[in-house]
Amino acid sequence: MSYTPESQVEVLVIGAGPAGLFLSSALVRAGIRVRVVDKKDTRVTTGHADGLHPRTIEILQSYGLADRFLSKAAQIHTMAYYNPGPDGGIERTEFGPFVRAPTARYPFAATLPQSDIEGLFRDEMAKYGAQVEQPVVPVALEISQDENELQSSTSYPVKVTLKRLNSNEGAELVAPRDNNTEIVRAKYVVGADGAHSWVRKTLEIDMIGESMNSIWGVVDFAPETDLPDIRIYCTIHSIHGSCAIIPREGDLIRLYVQLADVEADQNGRFDKSKLGPDDIIKASHSRAQKMLHPYKLSYTKPIDWWTVYIIGQRVASAFSAKNRVFIAGDACHTHSPKAGQGMNASMSDSHNLAWKLASVLRQWAPPSLLTTYDLERRQYAQELIDFDRILAKLFVTKPMTEGNEGVTHEEFAQMRTKFTGFMSGIGIEYQPSTITNVSGSSLATKLIIGQRILPGVILQAANARPYELHDLLPSDMRFKILILSADITNPRQKAKLDALATRLHQPAGLLRRFTPLGAPKDAIFDIITIARVDKELVKVSMYPSQLLSHWSKAYTDDRSICGRVGGSFYANYGVSDDGAIIVCRPDGYVGMVAALDDLAAVEGYFDKFLRPCSKVTPVSGLVASQEKILGRL
Amino acid sequence: MSYTPESQVEVLVIGAGPAGLFLSSALVRAGIRVRVVDKKDTRVTTGHADGLHPRTIEILQSYGLADRFLSKAAQIHTMAYYNPGPDGGIERTEFGPFVRAPTARYPFAATLPQSDIEGLFRDEMAKYGAQVEQPVVPVALEISQDENELQSSTSYPVKVTLKRLNSNEGAELVAPRDNNTEIVRAKYVVGADGAHSWVRKTLEIDMIGESMNSIWGVVDFAPETDLPDIRIYCTIHSIHGSCAIIPREGDLIRLYVQLADVEADQNGRFDKSKLGPDDIIKASHSRAQKMLHPYKLSYTKPIDWWTVYIIGQRVASAFSAKNRVFIAGDACHTHSPKAGQGMNASMSDSHNLAWKLASVLRQWAPPSLLTTYDLERRQYAQELIDFDRILAKLFVTKPMTEGNEGVTHEEFAQMRTKFTGFMSGIGIEYQPSTITNVSGSSLATKLIIGQRILPGVILQAANARPYELHDLLPSDMRFKILILSADITNPRQKAKLDALATRLHQPAGLLRRFTPLGAPKDAIFDIITIARVDKELVKVSMYPSQLLSHWSKAYTDDRSICGRVGGSFYANYGVSDDGAIIVCRPDGYVGMVAALDDLAAVEGYFDKFLRPCSKVTPVSGLVASQEKILGRL
Repeated sequence: MSYTPESQVEVLVIGAGPAGLFLSSALVRAGIRVRVVDKKDTRVTTGHADGLHPRTIEILQSYGLADRFLSKAAQIHTMAYYNPGPDGGIERTEFGPFVRAPTARYPFAATLPQSDIEGLFRDEMAKYGAQVEQPVVPVALEISQDENELQSSTSYPVKVTLKRLNSNEGAELVAPRDNNTEIVRAKYVVGADGAHSWVRKTLEIDMIGESMNSIWGVVDFAPETDLPDIRIYCTIHSIHGSCAIIPREGDLIRLYVQLADVEADQNGRFDKSKLGPDDIIKASHSRAQKMLHPYKLSYTKPIDWWTVYIIGQRVASAFSAKNRVFIAGDACHTHSPKAGQGMNASMSDSHNLAWKLASVLRQWAPPSLLTTYDLERRQYAQELIDFDRILAKLFVTKPMTEGNEGVTHEEFAQMRTKFTGFMSGIGIEYQPSTITNVSGSSLATKLIIGQRILPGVILQAANARPYELHDLLPSDMRFKILILSADITNPRQKAKLDALATRLHQPAGLLRRFTPLGAPKDAIFDIITIARVDKELVKVSMYPSQLLSHWSKAYTDDRSICGRVGGSFYANYGVSDDGAIIVCRPDGYVGMVAALDDLAAVEGYFDKFLRPCSKVTPVSGLVASQEKILGRL
Repeated sequence: MSYTPESQVEVLVIGAGPAGLFLSSALVRAGIRVRVVDKKDTRVTTGHADGLHPRTIEILQSYGLADRFLSKAAQIHTMAYYNPGPDGGIERTEFGPFVRAPTARYPFAATLPQSDIEGLFRDEMAKYGAQVEQPVVPVALEISQDENELQSSTSYPVKVTLKRLNSNEGAELVAPRDNNTEIVRAKYVVGADGAHSWVRKTLEIDMIGESMNSIWGVVDFAPETDLPDIRIYCTIHSIHGSCAIIPREGDLIRLYVQLADVEADQNGRFDKSKLGPDDIIKASHSRAQKMLHPYKLSYTKPIDWWTVYIIGQRVASAFSAKNRVFIAGDACHTHSPKAGQGMNASMSDSHNLAWKLASVLRQWAPPSLLTTYDLERRQYAQELIDFDRILAKLFVTKPMTEGNEGVTHEEFAQMRTKFTGFMSGIGIEYQPSTITNVSGSSLATKLIIGQRILPGVILQAANARPYELHDLLPSDMRFKILILSADITNPRQKAKLDALATRLHQPAGLLRRFTPLGAPKDAIFDIITIARVDKELVKVSMYPSQLLSHWSKAYTDDRSICGRVGGSFYANYGVSDDGAIIVCRPDGYVGMVAALDDLAAVEGYFDKFLRPCSKVTPVSGLVASQEKILGRL
């Protein structure tokens, strides 16, 4: 009888694409014990997913990864529309910004091969001694039916059987053995295993959506062309069909062509073996060369990567099973490449899930917090699919030309304008829930509760050094409490701030209520006070010392000393002379806004989804790991 | 008879402080064979030199090192003056920017321990497989007297005997042997071996200057104080004497106190053993605690680092011997810490020397180019010493109080304003010479020939992506030729640009005249064309293809598509509708400006100090290493 090893892990991640790697690296950083498995032999090396949108770059920044990403990525600032001209060839009808979100910190999209983006997360994991186990596949998954076990914070109720494959490359590393399976008992399992997700199928979660499948050709290559806009994002509507051009790193571009004349059978299958990159590029009906006329398009260097695939717009009917197994990324949503959201949506799923898993595993929050993952990300996915459906329809429909009905350029452009916040990711808005309380929205009129917090420059009170607020809000799993005290040289504001500071530290106050005994005072809540006092007058001693875990936590809203930045933080947030308290969730989204003298509202907000610390089961190591993480950040 | 090993190296650097390490890493990057030795056992770990000024940060940026530096450094944006108030204690009399150079890309100074800064260069060297040999001291240095050997580009005319010491730490690594000396024959030797430079003494170079020595106490510690400006740069003039406060990383500050009551003997020596950190901080006549009254100053955490030293203002009478041995850094100039220039001056010496050595070693230029190192850097050092002398005198002189003659606050502030460009490094200006031709200054009225080139935002023509020009001018040892063609939709300008492109590539034209046969066309000259055409109209095809080594080399001056940056490049440079040609030296300084139709002037400029390629002795490996470097940048 062969022996099957068994082990325990807090989180088992299945799939090491962008969604799985993002989640794993975020959790590993937070001190969570994670294992990641992937069925592939090796990392992907070229091609695959698209670029990152402004919000996704902001998210990378919050993990300290944006600089490395940006140092290698191509930037897309500009886009053009081409439409049929009077002579039948295309002509440029519009030229403008690719990103129209005025508050985007990074006002552009950026492309980098998926392998490089995955490398960011693999390297980040490696810093903490973690790596992907591959090729390993799950062969069985079972969730306990015992309700007590499901509700317990110390149980490992998900049983997964993993099988290690013999890879060609790794063959010599894996000793051949009869029994290459093992059993992993996990607190949580996340299926980030792609559009054909094994986890999703095993959980019997349906994909819901229209069956309108479209077949797309994608090719990455170094073009030879006289199209002047070849280095910007182009949407091309020709009388021969439509395509999109996306600049990539170096001399590469990506070309997306919908192969309208390739048909799938009733089962949504088509014969990929009959197609090649030249079926995407070269002249024939509905191919890129024809669409670009009168501009030339060819290539001499080898094709970097290409694929042809069929896609429908569908969303999973549920993103979790019993709040113990979750799916993320392409496992949850499939859509056309037209919206260019694929990798962004996947990584944002993981960003949303990471802090919730960490909060529950650390026992800061009861498991019910995890329900908001399905709520927030399934809503988003549905919006994404609806958006993609409209966009894809417009894209396929022939453009209106003289004597030819169709979509006008204006219709198309209007549609894009409408969805611009959505496309950049900046405008993604989570609906009201236990973690998104919109009742105080009038207190910060230009901040949208449920959206990511606005960037803005403030000055450190001690030294007038300007800081971008986003740089002070790292994804370290903590809630950020921004106390906008306004003018504390005004006795009325100072009194409110002093009262707040006192209440915060009372035995039943916010800090002691939720922060585990023995943990540092700022383990869960990072308090940042932003006054509005002239930089020349402001002193750290004006801020109640109970609010300052360190002198660096005191800020003011004023113009920087060299006059280049700052001075409009309150105005940009729409916060009055009365000030406000803004709660920023660990993922950088605004959770709630309260009046400066209404800490009770903040306490009430956290009461809904955090666990009073008296109910926490002591777990050794968590506090220490949190300390370690904070030290590293 | 013991055997003494002999070897050859292109450059031997003696001393691995900031000057030596900067030079070594710059040369190693450029593919030059370099050895670096230092007498110290180990790296310094705390304390030592001051922060970096704006220009020095720009220089680091040109080597790709600024991001890493800035991610760790403390920033100083603000400064305050304190002067005696009516009750005898100090009071703040001014608060303002620490950096007053409006064109500084980084409008602040930044502090980091010297060990971390040295670490930047050591890590950079390690990337190329180079490291410091220590503890190793030179014991003999001999320059050939043979004029032919001195003029030859293939000779190794400097003979240095090195002796490896047994270190405590490295003892087990060095096999004890009778003969631990070796002979190195070098093409060039650089003494970056500090204020007591062995190289300088061996060359019998005098230090020239007044004998006014001053004794300074310096201490790095975490202060406990109620001085509100403790986190900004403070100059404190009290009736008890003067001191300066410099914020450092974390909770540390640096305190500089001139110990006016400690006296040196006739030989400029004093008994350091009788002094300690409390002699700098604690209350007694002319100590910091007394100077800060009515503010408190104390400490509880251990002192991080301290020293007491004596310094005079002196400059070496020559910076080189026979253009084969050079001195750099503190070996060339000593001055008080008051100007805060130490490490900045040292690194700038090396930055100035690096490209000249590389150009001569690659045979792009004859050895006479090296004469400009002494010319430019000794002039600078003299200005630095003059500045320091004035500053130090003001600093020591008691401030004027009621009924007490002295320096007024206004006098002091005026002096600072006068020298602000010098202090930030932004205004450092090299005098006219073979490499600095000021005759075309009217063609770019806001650019100062001899100063570092102004930063400015331009858009890449192919995609309207905004770039900071400085990011396009890496310290890769190449000359950057900026062709400001102005509006090339104007036939007059287009004709001038076309003519320039044709002339550039003619057999006797600039490129073929100086670029070695077989080397890539852009080996010596990196050509960047900056038009002034609306981003919506501009096309890469408007630029003569001979000017573009790659499509990324075509730029235009216009506002970025998101409207946040750009659009004032020509205006900020003071270049008219006629355009201009700007030659930027490899170190980022403006070498000359010519009219767009006067390439002859550019040819004439380079004729003065570059070697026509027909005269180059073929040396294998140089072209390949250059290619490698360009590929890496």
